[in-house]
Parts: sequence; structure tokens; C-alpha cells
Amino acid sequence: VAAAKKQKSLSDLFEDGVKDIYYAEKRIVKTLPKMAKAATDDALRAGLQKHLKETEGHIARLEKVFGLMGKTARGKTCPAIDGIIEEGGEVLDEFNGSPAIDAGLAASAQAVEHYEIARYRTLASWAHALGMGEAAALLEQTLDEEIAADEALVTMSQQGITERALDKAA
Amino acid sequence: VAAAKKQKSLSDLFEDGVKDIYYAEKRIVKTLPKMAKAATDDALRAGLQKHLKETEGHIARLEKVFGLMGKTARGKTCPAIDGIIEEGGEVLDEFNGSPAIDAGLAASAQAVEHYEIARYRTLASWAHALGMGEAAALLEQTLDEEIAADEALVTMSQQGITERALDKAA
Repeated sequence: VAAAKKQKSLSDLFEDGVKDIYYAEKRIVKTLPKMAKAATDDALRAGLQKHLKETEGHIARLEKVFGLMGKTARGKTCPAIDGIIEEGGEVLDEFNGSPAIDAGLAASAQAVEHYEIARYRTLASWAHALGMGEAAALLEQTLDEEIAADEALVTMSQQGITERALDKAA
Repeated sequence: VAAAKKQKSLSDLFEDGVKDIYYAEKRIVKTLPKMAKAATDDALRAGLQKHLKETEGHIARLEKVFGLMGKTARGKTCPAIDGIIEEGGEVLDEFNGSPAIDAGLAASAQAVEHYEIARYRTLASWAHALGMGEAAALLEQTLDEEIAADEALVTMSQQGITERALDKAA
């Protein structure tokens, strides 16, 4: 007789989510330097480089969260970030050398940020519900940085990246 | 001698983006009924069903945008939404029958919403830059509905979905 399957709980969902975003952050840290290198707009390049440094900090915070869970840090393949990064790579291939490359890069980066915003918001609220206040605070710090990174990309786009894509194409 | 490759422009980026989100919306419209069926929380199920109706409207708006571009509506494989939906499917498989299923479904739906928020925000701003005011207005209407759908999911999670996942697991 097979043993009864253990009922999956919110803790399992939380742990799966932390592994998912840990994998995602590790992929992002490898992708941002390629995006920064392809950027022709100085502010965009600096913004991507700044976010690379922040992302290294997000990985360190997640490792603390694993520690608070009494677990070893370990990623779990995240098809969502794989797909988002694959799409960003397509834009890079197709628009490299085009005046629209910076607009494309900023859009790809915003798709990455929004994935992370969704995940960190959920994980922080689950950590609170599970009574893991310290983990929740770490996740919220990262959430705030992801929101700020997205807002910076929106501002950069409004303040010239989109218009310049247009001017040069004319 | 090969003909010079046509320089890709912001218009090309916009057209690719509209095809990408059209494919994404078509996948979402097929996925939402499965998510609604799996939901055990009445408010969450109703919210997913309401968003299914809205999504049908988003597809119709995108078809108008294609018309404004003088193009036939056609999707382009979007690996990002494929990955996000694949991940949602994993949660559904692993947490079906668990008290945490509604929390998992709400999280999956928020990941979908955030992908759309990132894309529609960018597309609306590109439409403005390209002088396509009518297309921009259509894209902004959808953007507002995606933001509202995400906020409704956050509220539902705060108002009980997360806590109930915890209570039943105790």
C-alpha cells in the first residue's frame, strides 16, 4: 500500500517560490551585462549596470531567506524567466544596430522587473502569513528595488529613449 | 551582391510587440477557464471568470490595433507567456487538492497580469511616439484593466486567500 501523499501546504508553495526566484535572479545576473553592453544610451547602460549590482544583493538576500528556512540555497528551473530572457535575446538579435535597440532593451528589462515584482510581492505576503517576519522584510526590500528599477526604466523611456529611436529612424 | 538589410525601426518593434501580446492573450483566454475551475475560493473564481470576459475584449482591441496598422491580426510565439503559463500549470498539478491551491492560483494570475502590464505600458508609449493616438488609447484601456485585475488579486489575497491556506493546513 502506497503511503498517503503528504498534503502540500503554504510553506511548500513559499519554498517553491523562493527556489523559483533564486533561479531567476541567477539567470538575470548573467543576462544584464549582455544587455548593458548592447545599450547605446548612456543612462540606460548605467541603469542596467546599477541594477546588476542590486541583483547581486537580491541573491544574497535570498540566501539569507533560505537560511531562515533552515534550507540550503537551491534554485528550481523557472520557465517564466527562461521565456522572458529568450524573448529579450530575440530583440537583441533582431534590433542590434537599429536605432530602436535601446527601446527594445528597456522593454525587455521592464518585462523582467514586472515578473520579479509579481513574485516578490506574493512571497513577502506569504512570509508574513507564515510568521517569518525577517524573511518578509528581506523580500520587501528587494521588492522596493524592483519597483524602483521599473520606474527608472519608464522615466528613461519617457525622457528620450523612445523619441530618439524615432528621430534616428527618420 | 546581397541587398542591404532594411534597418529595423520603432514601427517594427511595435508590430512585433503587438503580435507577441496577441499570442499571449490568446493563450490566456484558453488558460483562465482551467484556473477558474481549479479555484475553491468563490471570490477568486468569480474574479478569474470576470477577467476571462475582459481578456476577450483585449483580443478584440488588439484586432482593432492591427486594423489601424493596416495589418491582418496574427500572433507571434511568445516564449515569456508560454513559460509563465507552464509554471502556472505546475502549481495547478502540484497543489490541486491542497489548501494552498487558491494562493498558488492567485500568484500565477498575478505573474500573468504583470507580464501584460509591462507589455501594454511599453506598447502604449510606443504608439504615442509613432503618432498612433487611437491605438495608444486602446492599449491604455487594456493596461488599466490589467492593473485593476492585479490589484483585485492582491486584495483577495490580503482579505483571506493566504490566511485560509494557512488555517486549513494547520
